[in-house]
Amino acid sequence: ERTGEPEVVLATGKTPAQCAEAVAALHGGSSPVLVTRADAEHAAAVRGVVPDADYDEAARLVVVPAGEQRAGTPGTVAVATGGTGDLPVARECAGVLGAFGVEVRMVTDVGVTGVHRTLAAARTLTDTDVVVAVAGMEGTLPTVLAGLVSQPVVAVPTSVGYGASFGGVAALLTMLSSCAPGVSVVNIDNGFGAAMVARRILRTRGGAG
Amino acid sequence: ERTGEPEVVLATGKTPAQCAEAVAALHGGSSPVLVTRADAEHAAAVRGVVPDADYDEAARLVVVPAGEQRAGTPGTVAVATGGTGDLPVARECAGVLGAFGVEVRMVTDVGVTGVHRTLAAARTLTDTDVVVAVAGMEGTLPTVLAGLVSQPVVAVPTSVGYGASFGGVAALLTMLSSCAPGVSVVNIDNGFGAAMVARRILRTRGGAG
Amino acid sequence: ERTGEPEVVLATGKTPAQCAEAVAALHGGSSPVLVTRADAEHAAAVRGVVPDADYDEAARLVVVPAGEQRAGTPGTVAVATGGTGDLPVARECAGVLGAFGVEVRMVTDVGVTGVHRTLAAARTLTDTDVVVAVAGMEGTLPTVLAGLVSQPVVAVPTSVGYGASFGGVAALLTMLSSCAPGVSVVNIDNGFGAAMVARRILRTRGGAG
Amino acid sequence: ERTGEPEVVLATGKTPAQCAEAVAALHGGSSPVLVTRADAEHAAAVRGVVPDADYDEAARLVVVPAGEQRAGTPGTVAVATGGTGDLPVARECAGVLGAFGVEVRMVTDVGVTGVHRTLAAARTLTDTDVVVAVAGMEGTLPTVLAGLVSQPVVAVPTSVGYGASFGGVAALLTMLSSCAPGVSVVNIDNGFGAAMVARRILRTRGGAG
Amino acid sequence: ERTGEPEVVLATGKTPAQCAEAVAALHGGSSPVLVTRADAEHAAAVRGVVPDADYDEAARLVVVPAGEQRAGTPGTVAVATGGTGDLPVARECAGVLGAFGVEVRMVTDVGVTGVHRTLAAARTLTDTDVVVAVAGMEGTLPTVLAGLVSQPVVAVPTSVGYGASFGGVAALLTMLSSCAPGVSVVNIDNGFGAAMVARRILRTRGGAG
Amino acid sequence: ERTGEPEVVLATGKTPAQCAEAVAALHGGSSPVLVTRADAEHAAAVRGVVPDADYDEAARLVVVPAGEQRAGTPGTVAVATGGTGDLPVARECAGVLGAFGVEVRMVTDVGVTGVHRTLAAARTLTDTDVVVAVAGMEGTLPTVLAGLVSQPVVAVPTSVGYGASFGGVAALLTMLSSCAPGVSVVNIDNGFGAAMVARRILRTRGGAG
Amino acid sequence: ERTGEPEVVLATGKTPAQCAEAVAALHGGSSPVLVTRADAEHAAAVRGVVPDADYDEAARLVVVPAGEQRAGTPGTVAVATGGTGDLPVARECAGVLGAFGVEVRMVTDVGVTGVHRTLAAARTLTDTDVVVAVAGMEGTLPTVLAGLVSQPVVAVPTSVGYGASFGGVAALLTMLSSCAPGVSVVNIDNGFGAAMVARRILRTRGGAG
Amino acid sequence: ERTGEPEVVLATGKTPAQCAEAVAALHGGSSPVLVTRADAEHAAAVRGVVPDADYDEAARLVVVPAGEQRAGTPGTVAVATGGTGDLPVARECAGVLGAFGVEVRMVTDVGVTGVHRTLAAARTLTDTDVVVAVAGMEGTLPTVLAGLVSQPVVAVPTSVGYGASFGGVAALLTMLSSCAPGVSVVNIDNGFGAAMVARRILRTRGGAG
Ligand SMILES: Nc1ncnc2c1ncn2[C@@H]1O[C@H](COP(=O)(O)O)[C@@H](O)[C@H]1O
Ligand SMILES: Nc1ncnc2c1ncn2[C@@H]1O[C@H](COP(=O)(O)O)[C@@H](O)[C@H]1O
Ligand SMILES: Nc1ncnc2c1ncn2[C@@H]1O[C@H](COP(=O)(O)O)[C@@H](O)[C@H]1O
Ligand SMILES: Nc1ncnc2c1ncn2[C@@H]1O[C@H](COP(=O)(O)O)[C@@H](O)[C@H]1O
Ligand SMILES: [Mg+2]
Ligand SMILES: [Mg+2]
Ligand SMILES: [Mg+2]
Ligand SMILES: [Mg+2]
Ligand SMILES: [Mg+2]
Ligand SMILES: [Mg+2]
Ligand SMILES: [Mg+2]
Ligand SMILES: [Mg+2]
Repeated sequence: ERTGEPEVVLATGKTPAQCAEAVAALHGGSSPVLVTRADAEHAAAVRGVVPDADYDEAARLVVVPAGEQRAGTPGTVAVATGGTGDLPVARECAGVLGAFGVEVRMVTDVGVTGVHRTLAAARTLTDTDVVVAVAGMEGTLPTVLAGLVSQPVVAVPTSVGYGASFGGVAALLTMLSSCAPGVSVVNIDNGFGAAMVARRILRTRGGAG
Repeated sequence: ERTGEPEVVLATGKTPAQCAEAVAALHGGSSPVLVTRADAEHAAAVRGVVPDADYDEAARLVVVPAGEQRAGTPGTVAVATGGTGDLPVARECAGVLGAFGVEVRMVTDVGVTGVHRTLAAARTLTDTDVVVAVAGMEGTLPTVLAGLVSQPVVAVPTSVGYGASFGGVAALLTMLSSCAPGVSVVNIDNGFGAAMVARRILRTRGGAG
Repeated sequence: ERTGEPEVVLATGKTPAQCAEAVAALHGGSSPVLVTRADAEHAAAVRGVVPDADYDEAARLVVVPAGEQRAGTPGTVAVATGGTGDLPVARECAGVLGAFGVEVRMVTDVGVTGVHRTLAAARTLTDTDVVVAVAGMEGTLPTVLAGLVSQPVVAVPTSVGYGASFGGVAALLTMLSSCAPGVSVVNIDNGFGAAMVARRILRTRGGAG
Repeated sequence: ERTGEPEVVLATGKTPAQCAEAVAALHGGSSPVLVTRADAEHAAAVRGVVPDADYDEAARLVVVPAGEQRAGTPGTVAVATGGTGDLPVARECAGVLGAFGVEVRMVTDVGVTGVHRTLAAARTLTDTDVVVAVAGMEGTLPTVLAGLVSQPVVAVPTSVGYGASFGGVAALLTMLSSCAPGVSVVNIDNGFGAAMVARRILRTRGGAG
Repeated sequence: ERTGEPEVVLATGKTPAQCAEAVAALHGGSSPVLVTRADAEHAAAVRGVVPDADYDEAARLVVVPAGEQRAGTPGTVAVATGGTGDLPVARECAGVLGAFGVEVRMVTDVGVTGVHRTLAAARTLTDTDVVVAVAGMEGTLPTVLAGLVSQPVVAVPTSVGYGASFGGVAALLTMLSSCAPGVSVVNIDNGFGAAMVARRILRTRGGAG
Repeated sequence: ERTGEPEVVLATGKTPAQCAEAVAALHGGSSPVLVTRADAEHAAAVRGVVPDADYDEAARLVVVPAGEQRAGTPGTVAVATGGTGDLPVARECAGVLGAFGVEVRMVTDVGVTGVHRTLAAARTLTDTDVVVAVAGMEGTLPTVLAGLVSQPVVAVPTSVGYGASFGGVAALLTMLSSCAPGVSVVNIDNGFGAAMVARRILRTRGGAG
Repeated sequence: ERTGEPEVVLATGKTPAQCAEAVAALHGGSSPVLVTRADAEHAAAVRGVVPDADYDEAARLVVVPAGEQRAGTPGTVAVATGGTGDLPVARECAGVLGAFGVEVRMVTDVGVTGVHRTLAAARTLTDTDVVVAVAGMEGTLPTVLAGLVSQPVVAVPTSVGYGASFGGVAALLTMLSSCAPGVSVVNIDNGFGAAMVARRILRTRGGAG
Repeated sequence: ERTGEPEVVLATGKTPAQCAEAVAALHGGSSPVLVTRADAEHAAAVRGVVPDADYDEAARLVVVPAGEQRAGTPGTVAVATGGTGDLPVARECAGVLGAFGVEVRMVTDVGVTGVHRTLAAARTLTDTDVVVAVAGMEGTLPTVLAGLVSQPVVAVPTSVGYGASFGGVAALLTMLSSCAPGVSVVNIDNGFGAAMVARRILRTRGGAG
């Protein structure tokens, strides 16, 4: 594959058997195989095919390592969350990065309603290469972080919230409308996508990945 | 009027003559008369009827003082803005409060993309009674301020922005979804409404209003 | 915490064990700990950790009293509802206020389709300090009340209704568009948020809070 | 025409000449011809063809009387407005009813933020047959009126307002979500449509119309 | 009750016990008591309190007759549906009308994709007083009927459909945008509301109701 | 060009000079060059470059014939409109088809509120190959026509209307939700697109096109 | 039936018994009877009535052959999908076409993120008559295919995706906004509708069907 | 400024004098000053203050060079557009990058309806570091490019289009929903924002910036 991307199966709307079958066809090559949005049954079925597949239930992510091991992509990605409810999305992101040997630093629960914690967190991020900022509800974390750090900030809105959060739309619009420089946005709850963006950014540095 | 509110004319969709006629019928009583969203022609027509009416072009606000002067409502309202584009709305708010003799402290251009300025601003607000926070684009200012001060925060989304700001909708949703305590919200660009809320809050303190 | 706010856990999307763990870490300090949107299992798990936690099933609210008891915030908050379907949200609001020792007066089922009942209710509210008005469907109650009383009115749209109610959006837009003075709005179904706003308003009166 | 309806030309998007041409082709029969949304140029062009056409500039309505005069539809329609900004729509409704000889009673500026005026207005409507309630912004007037009168209430949302009024959408949703019995709704700013509904209701009474 | 309306309980979001309790408090007077959106458990609980309550499962409607029997409202209402999927809403409408002794004529499955059936249906409606037209998906039935009959047409959009039907929104917008005269609209799936409108129209004819 | 399509310039957002320059670069080949959404200035500039370019002001369409003349695509396309306001879009469609030598039959003002005219129109279409149905407001024409004819129906929603028409969205949703078989939909006001679809359908018949 | 269409029952919202009853009334004539959106219970009930009915569980489609067998509609329809998640919709389309004896060529998993596979697929489609392109998420497949082939392209958005896919809305808007010529669109997930359009297009070629 | 960002003035809603005043206060430091969305009058006023300010009318961008010249950020950014209508946004992006000494390669008019041109363009991008893909209407360009290149792709939706493009919303949703890896998105028409993201990505490579 010219762009060096992983094989990914989206479990939503597929049976465990269909996921297992897809993984059976894809694994063993030079890329890891990922199953996203996988529940416990999907994971069990995949493990029936590839016993050493790793499953993170909170992240709903199955990782099947590449057949031939490659050197990891060098660099560090910070994954910061606004609240504990954003953790599953952050873990999906971290898990995907981990599958490529990228070093991840998790910084959780640093949402801007306690802005002094946000500032303290920002100070610990100076030696990372990319910041992924995951936030639901009003989704302000990426805006504030981008004013405090100088790395690219990949913003991930989450569907955490209710009412006028509209399943992540409020956070999404906040992030898109942000006048803070250096923020770009992926789909609601798309921890996987943020990881893919972060990894491509690391590769611009000359990484092997 | 049982609730002690001003007479207000919304100039939008009215001719200058209609505004002047409305003001002629309403002024001279115990409440000030306000004309909101007034352009220069509206203001001129009103001044034809009440020469000492005050007009703030940026705020698009005409204030006709009450016939019988009352003591001002005691207390101080801080009006903070995210960017300079939010100033017209902030001035509408301040102008309405001024019409009731409320002391106003303006704090402009303290949006959260320069969060250290936001923090500095918050430190100057401790002796005010109510905070009105005016912000467009992603509209984060009220959320961050509410985590830093202990007063009620009245949030005013503005239509400043473009694209996914959707004429103030992004800021509105941000403010409604905010997980910061003590924030309540008025309509987009509604500086007038925020002033009315702030004044009622001041009156709970026993003000004469 | 500088702003004197409670610790709050949003149970939605968390397991009972996660809620209990969060409460265990937070309780015993100078603020009450609240768990909102808690079902019976969440409540049972929290009580496993703090046996004297109070649970209101209708309100889906767990209240864990502060370790050190403080004087309540002086003042009275009226909580009025349009219909009986709005009661859970009103009770969440009342329960949170109660956790801070605020006196609450509930006035239920005074929606504007029976406007004479609304008027009668308004006459009983004159000695309260803040009015929280909770209404679903078309959400008109706050508008009418604000024309009848002189206190600040905190409007809470609820998701009660169907079709063009759009899960509370119709009520939300009504409340934001209201031309009645003194109305500000919190998120759909956010009884908790309305309580936090009301308490901050009471504190502007010099309450201990 | 089997259903006895007027010929109507919507001027929006048509040139004055096109309107005049359409009227020239339609007038002189047993129904009046109406031109709605007509500005002064449209009206002038139509009058070039039919000199006795009547034009109400505020209502933007041209009425060309029927060639053969018929007895008016018996009955009275009340047309009530929330604010003065709703007058153009109310006048369009009244003008169309007038073209069919229906008696109209206008009751203006009785919006629910001054609910005592709404109640007083409702008391004057008991001898009318249909109530058309025209309101913008939050659009509550029909809901409250329907709880006070026993006639059918035809609700007309108007585009008066700004921000979360969304060009009449807030009022429309309010009216559709209303739990008051007897309310049905026509399109935003559709005074013409409300008149047509009211006239059909009058005809169920055995009117000649 | 001045406007002579029924007592109505919306079962959605209420327990069977709460519905039964509400009915117990309301029945026995001069109006019927209705429970809308009632499932079998709600109905059973109500019957525990008022054994002769009538339940139509398809319509999800419980009718508790008035304590003192009144003469029915004279007149006939046609209830027409586009497809068989619209029947539950049509039956809710018919059931409510029946509770007031109004004669109902059901005309089902006459949607406009088979427009010759629609025309045939319209010819059978000439001797009715009001037409309620119930339609989902694209919701065209009321528009076409209103061009064929001369009665008032009360349009009820239903949530039947998928995709761009958006739960009844497509049908709702069709009905509001209709250029056919004499059409007014109630909320999505609101058969109850259409019945209330139809009954008020019948009463303008001098019915006892 | 493998798919044999015309060169098309969208004038919106381009200066007359930019349009003329684009046409100068594209014309003279084996396909006609079209400029859509062209006002009189755009047309004049294009004619400065290609004097024999044809301009239909109502359709806002410039047609520059192909350099080398080809045989027209055999077959007939019916273009039907609901109201006269839909004519500009219908003419854009007809003009584009004409540029390819396709025979067009225009059938105007046959909207479904006068359904007997719609039926009469349908009877005249039996010998055409494709039906393009153009309608605004509630957009019902394609649904009814598709139940009466057996050709493919290409539906074009127009932005004619106001209020709940939402600039063509109501008509668009109607057309997409239609349960009539054989209807497919193009973008709002996209007469050009409908012509392109119709021409491809004709070519499946073995036309030279 | 003048337009030669099948009888179709939409199972959504109907009980198995209701579906079986409908099929019992409709089958045995000159058209096949289809039940769409049928789950296993619906299918079993229908087979109780017509034992030789065919059921495709993935497509959720029941096909009851016509009583009198007709010659199939001549011609070939290509059904292409972007991802494996789009297969159920593609199979509904193929199943309906099969019921009319139309030849179908399935080309799956050729979405544009692997655009070289899309190009390869396009090369295999040259001898088909119509292309149905089924795609979810961002829904780009029809746009790219229409630039590569010269047949009519019927685009089917699917509800596959999450977040900003909004249940198929993103794909729908992509397809409508496409600047590729020859694309028309049916409702989200409407494989049935695409088949009906494709069949009508084949009949313009002079097919019997 | 800790994050090394430019000073930026958004001209929308500001008078020429206000822009000039803002620039006068900000220029002369170590960062360039930019005025975005500037029309000719804004530009003239700024040049009255800083005569060597550069103005690109198509991009609506004023660039005031930094007082002290710094080394440019090393690296190359490709800016690709779908159509010529997207050029203004692409030029805003390129102009901002140029202000920081970043090398830009423009690749215009390579939209996916002519996918062979898109492929050819992709082949010329292999030696760039970041790809900015600007597209309106259906907005597919970034999705296809991201499947062909291995750099980070910053997607910029534009408001080019009409109807279901909804002012850039269709393109925005396409880009967010894309299943192509490595795509992140900025606000509609936000060429400025894309440049800021691209520059931060370049700086992760160790550039001086
Ligand atoms: N074209 C633009 N898009 C997004 N943000 C911008 C743009 N131009 C300026 N800004 C930001 O908007 C804010 C300026 O707001 P104001 O104080 O109202 O001028 C600053 O944070 C700028 O960085
Ligand atoms: N199906 C229904 N549609 C609309 N309004 C209803 C319906 N059923 C009950 N209502 C109204 O909803 C209100 C009852 O709300 P609640 O007090 O929550 O039961 C009353 O005003 C009823 O008239
Ligand atoms: N999957 C489907 N998509 C669109 N329309 C359908 C579908 N299945 C059935 N229909 C149509 O829906 C109508 C049936 O409605 P009903 O009478 O409620 O069963 C008929 O016009 C069918 O042609
Ligand atoms: N969580 C995810 N978010 C976005 N795209 C995904 C996700 N998981 C898988 N995909 C993509 O979705 C496509 C898989 O579609 P399918 O063929 O239906 O499994 C592939 O292009 C994957 O890269
Ligand atoms: Mg957050
Ligand atoms: Mg701001
Ligand atoms: Mg209410
Ligand atoms: Mg009103
Ligand atoms: Mg129908
Ligand atoms: Mg039409
Ligand atoms: Mg796809
Ligand atoms: Mg493009």
